[in-house]
Amino acid sequence: MAETGACCSPLNREPLTEDWAGDLARMFKALGDPVRLRLLSLVASHEGGEACVCDISDTFDLSQPTISHHLKVLRQAGLLDCERRGTWVYYWVIPAALQQLSAVLLVEASSTAADVPQETAV
Amino acid sequence: MAETGACCSPLNREPLTEDWAGDLARMFKALGDPVRLRLLSLVASHEGGEACVCDISDTFDLSQPTISHHLKVLRQAGLLDCERRGTWVYYWVIPAALQQLSAVLLVEASSTAADVPQETAV
Repeated sequence: MAETGACCSPLNREPLTEDWAGDLARMFKALGDPVRLRLLSLVASHEGGEACVCDISDTFDLSQPTISHHLKVLRQAGLLDCERRGTWVYYWVIPAALQQLSAVLLVEASSTAADVPQETAV
Repeated sequence: MAETGACCSPLNREPLTEDWAGDLARMFKALGDPVRLRLLSLVASHEGGEACVCDISDTFDLSQPTISHHLKVLRQAGLLDCERRGTWVYYWVIPAALQQLSAVLLVEASSTAADVPQETAV
């Protein structure tokens, strides 16, 4: 699991540890698919911040089992949680997980070499 | 390419468009590998915000061609830029790209269903 110290520091603060990079990579990999990103966004932006497959399947030209598979990948990555209510399973995003990823990527422009001199020593 | 309006809104503000989700997914996919995440972090946190393979290869038990391949994936995803100076190619992160991803993931806890009532209608 992630070390508390390393958690949420921007990745230009200090090099990521191997363990923490592994945890983060699993979450980013789950986000590395357009359908999963749109699903996550549909769930997160749905009324009340939660949705069932019945609410979102009309948006996609995909079968409900395929949508459920993608939702499972997001859940296994720790980005969504869910609960069965009667016929349907309802999903919602885990804000802390997304905030953690957001914080890691929050790199300040001033601390990078964006303005590095364009000298070329040949 | 990304629509200006959709760019950088948190993904719970409104559903991501198909095009924008595709652009984002390509970048997240590049981040979905522990070695690439650590490379990105090593480059970003290196002195001056830039590094060549010669600066970082000691950290990994990987060949220089393998490291160069991962750096190329990050560059093709638009997360790194580079410049050859003499023998070595120097890399630095593109802050705007990382900030864009960070902004998309910046979901406020209050706008989600994290506190959804735990009723179960069977």
